[in-house]
Amino acid sequence: MNIAGRHYRSIWPDEEERSLVWVIDQRKLPFSFEQMPLRSADDVIFAINSMAVRGAPLIGVTAAWGIALSAIRNQGDREIKEKLRADAERLKATRPTAVNLAWAVDRIMGVIDGDVAVADIADLLRQAAIDICDEEVERCRHTGIVGLPLIEEISRRKGGEKVNILTHCNAGWLATVDYGTALAPVYMAHDKGIDLHVWVDETRPRNQGARLTAFELGNHGVPYTLIPDNTGGHLMQHGMVDIVIVGCDRATINGDVANKIGTYLKALAASDNNIPFYSAFPVSSFDTDIENYLDIPVEERDSSEVKMMEGVGANGTTIVRIYPDDASVANFGFDVTPARLITGLITDRGICRPERNAIENLLFRNNIWKE
Amino acid sequence: MNIAGRHYRSIWPDEEERSLVWVIDQRKLPFSFEQMPLRSADDVIFAINSMAVRGAPLIGVTAAWGIALSAIRNQGDREIKEKLRADAERLKATRPTAVNLAWAVDRIMGVIDGDVAVADIADLLRQAAIDICDEEVERCRHTGIVGLPLIEEISRRKGGEKVNILTHCNAGWLATVDYGTALAPVYMAHDKGIDLHVWVDETRPRNQGARLTAFELGNHGVPYTLIPDNTGGHLMQHGMVDIVIVGCDRATINGDVANKIGTYLKALAASDNNIPFYSAFPVSSFDTDIENYLDIPVEERDSSEVKMMEGVGANGTTIVRIYPDDASVANFGFDVTPARLITGLITDRGICRPERNAIENLLFRNNIWKE
Repeated sequence: MNIAGRHYRSIWPDEEERSLVWVIDQRKLPFSFEQMPLRSADDVIFAINSMAVRGAPLIGVTAAWGIALSAIRNQGDREIKEKLRADAERLKATRPTAVNLAWAVDRIMGVIDGDVAVADIADLLRQAAIDICDEEVERCRHTGIVGLPLIEEISRRKGGEKVNILTHCNAGWLATVDYGTALAPVYMAHDKGIDLHVWVDETRPRNQGARLTAFELGNHGVPYTLIPDNTGGHLMQHGMVDIVIVGCDRATINGDVANKIGTYLKALAASDNNIPFYSAFPVSSFDTDIENYLDIPVEERDSSEVKMMEGVGANGTTIVRIYPDDASVANFGFDVTPARLITGLITDRGICRPERNAIENLLFRNNIWKE
Repeated sequence: MNIAGRHYRSIWPDEEERSLVWVIDQRKLPFSFEQMPLRSADDVIFAINSMAVRGAPLIGVTAAWGIALSAIRNQGDREIKEKLRADAERLKATRPTAVNLAWAVDRIMGVIDGDVAVADIADLLRQAAIDICDEEVERCRHTGIVGLPLIEEISRRKGGEKVNILTHCNAGWLATVDYGTALAPVYMAHDKGIDLHVWVDETRPRNQGARLTAFELGNHGVPYTLIPDNTGGHLMQHGMVDIVIVGCDRATINGDVANKIGTYLKALAASDNNIPFYSAFPVSSFDTDIENYLDIPVEERDSSEVKMMEGVGANGTTIVRIYPDDASVANFGFDVTPARLITGLITDRGICRPERNAIENLLFRNNIWKE
């Protein structure tokens, strides 16, 4: 989407230098927009480890580029395949919980399975990385196309009056390559000229809503208002929210959605006020092995995410401790919203009710079902 | 309650100097425990305006002391009554929305209505301020006595296993003079030796949970864990919360409770998981004039509360900007939890169901009903 009127993806190959890829250094957002050059698998590992790139889809795509960059650097080396396999393992180890990461690395490594001339490897992998990026963009674009009619319908019902959308965390283009998941329908509706406005949850403790979602909406020109996570219920009680759209980290075959911690509370408020609540994600986020959503393991993260805060002080950007070092803190990464609170699932392959039959039909129809 | 094993109130007269009152400078918490001396109405006005003292009950009591201190300073002055009346107006203007403030000032000014010898005024008002403090403590102590059996019953049912209580914002002794409202039953249960633990909501954007509730519980020796506001729903889904107790800014005659923004979301989660949800407050918080809770005006506060954050950096305590200056922000002060989500109301005059009949009975029985 756009920053200052110019279109960006979150990762892109340099137009001239074949062994150079650019990403946005997301650690610097929203205070500074800086591009970070990547020229090797090591550069990519650093970018992922340091969270210069984040968001499961973007991490996967960047790791795939890590393999391609390694192939370009090692072009002509007779042991290139062994080097790439070693880099693949190192790349996969950067964020072991991100499913997309292993998937993307395995996907690109599949290119050199079997008989491939060593001289062709670099070109093949570079093209594969470009393809993986483009496919990721297509998935998000389709998610947008699938979700767009929901917003159009509300706009029609309101006679063109402003549609108010609430979202949690960042499921926008910065987390993917372009468009995003939850925000894809929002960008499409905005670009079609539909009058809309987004309530952006701050999303403590890492503040991805305040730092990333507000940044990307504001820069694309989508009207938004940043709110503390405590606010959504009040807004919904007072008719100030027309629809809630969030992303998804993992969905069960029954339509339960694991997403950033706090999503469940917004789903409860939406349900209590008869406001439609949607989750948007690619069908690859369905985990068909989990029956009971309470069995989804919930990551506990370091307390420093709660106790420390980055900001701009008298001497530039700095990190301050906002609560005492010895304060007892718990920091759970996500929660699960049960299907009964969800109006529908917006996927790249179509929209469906959060019910096992509907989900199985969607997956069968698209030949994704694992059996 | 206790700090480092020593008992404190949030405001107390000096033991030797008659014209000196001490408060805790709550702006410095939790990083530093500093006592602030008050010797005049001006000192009190500064303490309230700068938020060195906060919390509706404490603000009221401190303002009453402002009148008493003014009387001591102006002892012997023939125009003392006029001076006190002028100070009363200035004190009331510090935080115009706090109902307790006007009530406490009017209450202490009532002492000099009618025939009072000028020479007696200082002594009378000093004693009245002491009485108002003691009454406030008694109200909170009774709230604790009324709520204690709820916690005892859960402990019994769990065979003495740890009782997990969730609270939002700060409704503890720092907001009152001692004990608090929501935390009064918690302190009493802890002091009786009941094994318990409190989940403390951070309470964005002013972080009163993280800065004040965590501080006061920790210093009294009550086990607690600080959590981002997004966390409570997940904890409740997983059986990690036995009871929710929050404070109250204003309650309707139908039992709806206006409290710090975000309370409604926790009430929804409690209801969805069959967890008892209580609000604790003095009966003076009933606003018998409001029928429909959606009519309660909700204060919108400055966006700087969301965008700025205090913390400890390399050079000591500092304030940093955590989001861009031009970010669009909304900051609502509280929300209203409808009675249907509330299990019961814990008041200083007894416990009651959040229903009009029960509340009217409670108020009639105590001769508080306004008719």
